[in-house]
Amino acid sequence: MKNKATPPLIIVGSIGIDTIETPREKRVEILGGSVSYACAAASFFVKTGMVGVVGTDFPPEHRALWEKMGIDLSGLQTKEGKTFRWSGVYEENMDNRRTLLTELNVFERFTPELPEEYRDASYLFLGNIAPELQLHVLEQVRNPKFILIDTMDLWISIAREKLIEVVGRCDMLTLNESEARLFTGARSLMDAARILLAMGPEFVLIKKGAGGSMLFSKNGIFLLHAFPLADFKDPTGAGDTFAGGLMGALAELNATDEKSIRRAMLYGSVTASFGVEEFSLERLAVLNRKEIDDRADTLKSMFYID
Amino acid sequence: MKNKATPPLIIVGSIGIDTIETPREKRVEILGGSVSYACAAASFFVKTGMVGVVGTDFPPEHRALWEKMGIDLSGLQTKEGKTFRWSGVYEENMDNRRTLLTELNVFERFTPELPEEYRDASYLFLGNIAPELQLHVLEQVRNPKFILIDTMDLWISIAREKLIEVVGRCDMLTLNESEARLFTGARSLMDAARILLAMGPEFVLIKKGAGGSMLFSKNGIFLLHAFPLADFKDPTGAGDTFAGGLMGALAELNATDEKSIRRAMLYGSVTASFGVEEFSLERLAVLNRKEIDDRADTLKSMFYID
Repeated sequence: MKNKATPPLIIVGSIGIDTIETPREKRVEILGGSVSYACAAASFFVKTGMVGVVGTDFPPEHRALWEKMGIDLSGLQTKEGKTFRWSGVYEENMDNRRTLLTELNVFERFTPELPEEYRDASYLFLGNIAPELQLHVLEQVRNPKFILIDTMDLWISIAREKLIEVVGRCDMLTLNESEARLFTGARSLMDAARILLAMGPEFVLIKKGAGGSMLFSKNGIFLLHAFPLADFKDPTGAGDTFAGGLMGALAELNATDEKSIRRAMLYGSVTASFGVEEFSLERLAVLNRKEIDDRADTLKSMFYID
Repeated sequence: MKNKATPPLIIVGSIGIDTIETPREKRVEILGGSVSYACAAASFFVKTGMVGVVGTDFPPEHRALWEKMGIDLSGLQTKEGKTFRWSGVYEENMDNRRTLLTELNVFERFTPELPEEYRDASYLFLGNIAPELQLHVLEQVRNPKFILIDTMDLWISIAREKLIEVVGRCDMLTLNESEARLFTGARSLMDAARILLAMGPEFVLIKKGAGGSMLFSKNGIFLLHAFPLADFKDPTGAGDTFAGGLMGALAELNATDEKSIRRAMLYGSVTASFGVEEFSLERLAVLNRKEIDDRADTLKSMFYID
């Protein structure tokens, strides 16, 4: 029997059924979760393996969509019970959102187990799950070239020591502005980044939503604009889409140097700008690589100085 | 008698004595005003003529500082009475400020009169004063190549029609995000820019503070990052410093095309990043051109993608 191929990129994270209300629209029970957004974004660049869990109630059409996008589902577990549910509402300016409901369901006892062929993957994205589960993934991979870790305020608050341990074993940490401040106690992002780099990762990527993103390393700072959109429908999952697209593009470049990371960030950012145009994966499901390449060129020309 | 030389750039605006409180420091009766910040910034690039008014109480050392910076003061009026006073306090995050006191004093009856030799200037920056006074300046210039106009929420609210008239006669309008929304009623900056461009100017420059700036034209959008600072002392006058540096650099390039405007914005933004490092003109007073050039190169390298 032929061995299964190792996907160049493996992503671990949550899968949820979301109910989302924006000032203009409410959508009930749509596909969400960090690993769903991230794998969808990465799928435009390389074969990507998904590690996550769904319940026996998970709609088959969602799984079919992932398969249609070329995502490898060998690491997807199906457990007796209900899929993770999340519900949130965005305020008028879409900048702030409130969580209305979180039902962990099968996600509560999730333990990420990598199929044998995933353990040799070169690129690994540890999406936002408990630090001890992220650590459990790290114990299964053999020789990764580049590991990106995401986290959230909850883990910073309740699992700080474990989080610092796992961050120290990764190449890049990504978080948003307020999480960077919460994690470090620093007021300025530059001070926060210095403290986070001292935890071990070579790169710290701070996400600022429509304000773009900042990459910090020992060599300095890289600043990237978000693609300016006249309108968007749903920012849920934008950070995961950005990070997933980044890791997909970096794996496609088969590189880990800063020059390649800058280029991969451009691709991740552009992929995320498409994602927010519609709810869930609705825009990514009909997106093609040429649209991504064209918008990446447009964004680059928007900050070009002769 | 030899005719006086025409400075390439003329700037009109307010001159004030400011009292400013930040979370860490309070400074009483320091030099401020839009034309003071803007001329100081422009002076690194070209000879700049200042048009404004002070009272008989105006401290001679402020005038001496402007002269030391090479600013032409032929258009500076001194009137019987007190100089304009302004006082404000910045909140903890330095993002919001409250005005505590505004005393117009001699500024109340200010009428900008251009010395004969100023009327042939090629570059004109109409700082934030009443639209009818800005119009009065336009009636005095003979053949300007490029006019930038700034404004504020007050004029948008109480002199909207006059403001629209004067904006229609300028090449570029600059305002901040909230002013752009107030002026147009649009929610997104892209919609706001479209409406503002329809008023006549070829360029609309939206200032976003530490979030950078956006230049809109019929050709599209240019996005510029602000130089990331670990710390700064006083953001007062940053917008005027940015616009003054931009106009100085553009006058130095002796151009009005978008390629040159992009480069001039880089210089304006970098000059403003120095300005906020200290209160009033304290940093600009000891700044040199090489520092500006070096930081402009650094900022450019920070958003470069190979």
